[in-house]
Amino acid sequence: MQAEPILHDLMQALRCLPGVGQKSAQRMVFHLLERDRQGAFKLAQRLAEAVDKIGHCKTCQTLTSSEVCVLCSDERRNHELLCVVETPTDVMAVESATSFKGVYFVLNGRLSPLDGLGPAEIGLDKLVDRLKIGEIKEIILATNPTVEGEATAHYISEMAKKHQVKATRIAHGVPFGGELEYIDSGTLSHAFSGRSEV
Amino acid sequence: MQAEPILHDLMQALRCLPGVGQKSAQRMVFHLLERDRQGAFKLAQRLAEAVDKIGHCKTCQTLTSSEVCVLCSDERRNHELLCVVETPTDVMAVESATSFKGVYFVLNGRLSPLDGLGPAEIGLDKLVDRLKIGEIKEIILATNPTVEGEATAHYISEMAKKHQVKATRIAHGVPFGGELEYIDSGTLSHAFSGRSEV
Repeated sequence: MQAEPILHDLMQALRCLPGVGQKSAQRMVFHLLERDRQGAFKLAQRLAEAVDKIGHCKTCQTLTSSEVCVLCSDERRNHELLCVVETPTDVMAVESATSFKGVYFVLNGRLSPLDGLGPAEIGLDKLVDRLKIGEIKEIILATNPTVEGEATAHYISEMAKKHQVKATRIAHGVPFGGELEYIDSGTLSHAFSGRSEV
Repeated sequence: MQAEPILHDLMQALRCLPGVGQKSAQRMVFHLLERDRQGAFKLAQRLAEAVDKIGHCKTCQTLTSSEVCVLCSDERRNHELLCVVETPTDVMAVESATSFKGVYFVLNGRLSPLDGLGPAEIGLDKLVDRLKIGEIKEIILATNPTVEGEATAHYISEMAKKHQVKATRIAHGVPFGGELEYIDSGTLSHAFSGRSEV
């Protein structure tokens, strides 16, 4: 069938969203045009606005509409404590789950030489500049516990050592509410080697 | 955390999409702004265009940018054969899977009195008008085999009978490639009662 070109184009455009294939895109188009035109209109506006106005914080690289994000420009936060995360959503996760009151540095990725992501691409030169200033006393490495995340954490900890800054890694182990029986072996071995006295 | 208002608004707007919750919306925002700004920009444009230009075909009620859709205005199709479906995506599914060369009528829903969807809301008065003209010789009922879909099919078949138009229902049974062992009992009992001579 020769689908309506406008509908076909919209379906294709929706597929740029992560996790959206052809079937979901079809369902979305129908839902939006049939049941929620106002929502679709609002979404179009919000998208255009975000693309236009959102850039990166020049201090921590997170997504923001101002030159320096709200967290970096907050005087009440502890600027001696720096948490390194992979993505802006990780910042949100840490903010909503913990009582961390330091500042962040967002890599927007992780070291992955095969994908062409070296230290410069994830902004580590910017991090070195901040280390040189000497304000930072501790770096908390909160990259994901994947192979690349671990490598990135290791690389940054070496950088920190060179500038006499303490580097710590968040704990990895059995998740709260999890059962030993169902935990993968890597996590369990981490939990044992990372045990602490009670 | 006080999330950037523009990002927060975009996340909320994305949640109007079916199947998108808070976590997926977060992931989408990050993906769009960090990895695919061009896709986001295009999506915004396409959405605005579709909301602006797409309406319903005045003959068959499907989504279209013209007054009468391409299928209804196609002279080569058999206008005596009318297939009744629930949604515009069903039209696409039938068009791509079958060799059906008649025309369609899209209910944009199904009879569901509890949700306030009566015959008028799904355009059945329009269908009666078309039956009265007398061009239609057969109605193929291709609503979904759910309780509401069956009720809708039954209602339309009664309408057709009143206007001396033949009404047929698409076959329901064991799907191609399916195994009897794993088929639900309703489908299997349908398959038996709908058996045909070979």
